[in-house]
Amino acid sequence: MRDFLPADKTRRERVLSVIRERYRAHGFDEIETPVVEEYDRLHAGIGGDNEKLSFNILRRGLDADGIRAAAEDPAALSDLGLRYDLTVPLARFYATNRGQLPGVFRSIQIGPVWRAERPQKGRYRQFVQCDIDIIGDDSARAEAELIVASLDTIDALGLTGGMVRVNDRRALDWMLDSFGFAEDERPGVLITIDKLDKIGADGIVAELRERGASASAVDAFAAFLRRPQTLEYNPYGERQIRKALPENAPEDLVAHLVGLGEAVAAARPAAEGIDPIPLQFDPFLVRGMGYYTGTIMELAHPSVSYSLGGGGRYDGMIGRFLGQQVPAVGFSIGFERIVDLLESADDAAGQSVVLVHDGDVPVSELVAHKAALIAGGARVRLERRTKNLKALLERAAADGYTAFAGVRAGDASDALEVKPLS
Amino acid sequence: MRDFLPADKTRRERVLSVIRERYRAHGFDEIETPVVEEYDRLHAGIGGDNEKLSFNILRRGLDADGIRAAAEDPAALSDLGLRYDLTVPLARFYATNRGQLPGVFRSIQIGPVWRAERPQKGRYRQFVQCDIDIIGDDSARAEAELIVASLDTIDALGLTGGMVRVNDRRALDWMLDSFGFAEDERPGVLITIDKLDKIGADGIVAELRERGASASAVDAFAAFLRRPQTLEYNPYGERQIRKALPENAPEDLVAHLVGLGEAVAAARPAAEGIDPIPLQFDPFLVRGMGYYTGTIMELAHPSVSYSLGGGGRYDGMIGRFLGQQVPAVGFSIGFERIVDLLESADDAAGQSVVLVHDGDVPVSELVAHKAALIAGGARVRLERRTKNLKALLERAAADGYTAFAGVRAGDASDALEVKPLS
Repeated sequence: MRDFLPADKTRRERVLSVIRERYRAHGFDEIETPVVEEYDRLHAGIGGDNEKLSFNILRRGLDADGIRAAAEDPAALSDLGLRYDLTVPLARFYATNRGQLPGVFRSIQIGPVWRAERPQKGRYRQFVQCDIDIIGDDSARAEAELIVASLDTIDALGLTGGMVRVNDRRALDWMLDSFGFAEDERPGVLITIDKLDKIGADGIVAELRERGASASAVDAFAAFLRRPQTLEYNPYGERQIRKALPENAPEDLVAHLVGLGEAVAAARPAAEGIDPIPLQFDPFLVRGMGYYTGTIMELAHPSVSYSLGGGGRYDGMIGRFLGQQVPAVGFSIGFERIVDLLESADDAAGQSVVLVHDGDVPVSELVAHKAALIAGGARVRLERRTKNLKALLERAAADGYTAFAGVRAGDASDALEVKPLS
Repeated sequence: MRDFLPADKTRRERVLSVIRERYRAHGFDEIETPVVEEYDRLHAGIGGDNEKLSFNILRRGLDADGIRAAAEDPAALSDLGLRYDLTVPLARFYATNRGQLPGVFRSIQIGPVWRAERPQKGRYRQFVQCDIDIIGDDSARAEAELIVASLDTIDALGLTGGMVRVNDRRALDWMLDSFGFAEDERPGVLITIDKLDKIGADGIVAELRERGASASAVDAFAAFLRRPQTLEYNPYGERQIRKALPENAPEDLVAHLVGLGEAVAAARPAAEGIDPIPLQFDPFLVRGMGYYTGTIMELAHPSVSYSLGGGGRYDGMIGRFLGQQVPAVGFSIGFERIVDLLESADDAAGQSVVLVHDGDVPVSELVAHKAALIAGGARVRLERRTKNLKALLERAAADGYTAFAGVRAGDASDALEVKPLS
């Protein structure tokens, strides 16, 4: 877990305010849930491997007997836990507050989540997630709104040229079925396919054989993987989608995928150097979470090899909390990765002045000078003069200050001469 | 712990952005620390009663033997905990990062804290604190900056007319000494004095006798409490401060308190209906935390009987983490109370439009209409037309939307007629 110093924190808050503003413009509404949820809900099997990484909170009021008894039943030690994602809390929130929400609810959630990862570079035990979700719309409108809003948001952050890789869990399922994988071996096959970027087609085939997957199905899949067909980026369209899938793909699936491209294209202005349809169909995109039921998406950007976000449709999950099926689809932007990508932002907000004062300036004169500058729209920091004035001013410039003024006892407010810092 | 629905969350974020913006203008820099701190640090005796209310995190990897052993030593069950305030984390942060911070460090910290309170009205187990602190300045400049920044902030929130009650732990200590209370009984006496607002002068005297405090000291205190001198608000100034204290108060203390008033007055513009010095000296202001060593402050507002924030000087605490004394003073604004006071804020950000569409409008047409309006600066929500259009529009108006347009299949983008909602 990390401390954030002022420069980092300022950058983080700026990125958050752009994300908030853009998602709000697209009609999403921000909500907040407690960071703590009930233990049973966090361990209901929805969170996959993340459940094992959750931080559990010690039950209060346990006496020595209670603790001894818990040796046989460790779950008795904990009744609450820190959330490991924002999706489980959203499903719980929706079930609790549905009566007060619009029929189609577009939510923004921004907040920290916790996972007890082994400390390693780029993995944090506390990190911020930024999710948007649309609950109550089973049409492709929802996916299109999520994709357009997310691309608009990274554009607004200066990361133009983003692209969304798209697939559908139903397409994956149909494809595995058409190769001849039995239903019960498909989850394992998907885990292997998910490694395609890392281990390549040959690695996939070898791992599937090692797993003991149906030999004839693996052969069929291997032949498909080794087509001359490139897996590289192609313009998104019906012909390309059909070509990337085995023959005789279900028409409704193809139509869904094609329609998504048309919708995103309609919402994005044509501009030089920007793909008309910033989508790529990737028939091998899996995404880990078991709860996805339809479209799955991943946000890519030419400047980095890893994804900057992703999401998908999870029509089954809300029902587990509500006891009634409600369609849902979400997209999570990779806040921590995006912050790391962005350079330190300039202090956009007007003039910022360091008031360098002698030690004998009365407090009331100092704060009066400061208040006058603030009233004029500036940001103001007091600094007592030190022998090394140069170092003091360099430090202030590094902290984003743009101007300075010297104050001596008895200076009138209009006598201050504010000079640029540099 | 609470869920926040969109209207509440929007209000909370607006208040936070005003607080951030104003504190930044006053030269404070925002930092962030993890919400989790080490168990030992959270239970080091600094947090007073709050330590008992902390949520502790279950140590990971405990086996049955480890759990059984913990029956004798419950602290072995937990290595981390959720912070119960922002001051302990700040002291730890400063000790960790001092080399990268300016000589006088003015911090902003905004974030949730947790206390395992019994659920009751107005008490929450998770709530947001907003603290500003100045570390490394032992002069009254620091107190003056905190007070002026905090008054400016609640002004900017529309809560003009705020006032800060001021006292000094050294004044309290001198006063109790002058009445004849022994040093070791003073902490208990302070706990009683802190109840003055609730139980009145007679209640205080009765409780002190009950406690068995030195009888002659209680008599002297009782006589002082029953002076004709009113405890009500008086203009802040030297004469009033001397009158409110027992005779022969130490001159340096009086000078400190008077200087604070002059500084705050110098920074505040004279305006009709606003006190020239928005301070009140209150010789019986105690504030609970044991770590205060000098000035103590509490923010009052005429619209409410409870305080809207407070703070004080705690010169001893940083040294406990750093092993070297560093002066510090802080002020915490009562975010939750302020949010409750403020009415639902208007959506300040331009036009917001509900696009009511028929079910047969193609997705690509819909998202194109939406994108065009967003590009024009609007906030846009799609709504599928329902039989009860009136209810749909009323719901949107309640959610802050100001305009609507109907969309049918094939409408050209410039054919949309956006009408006000109401």
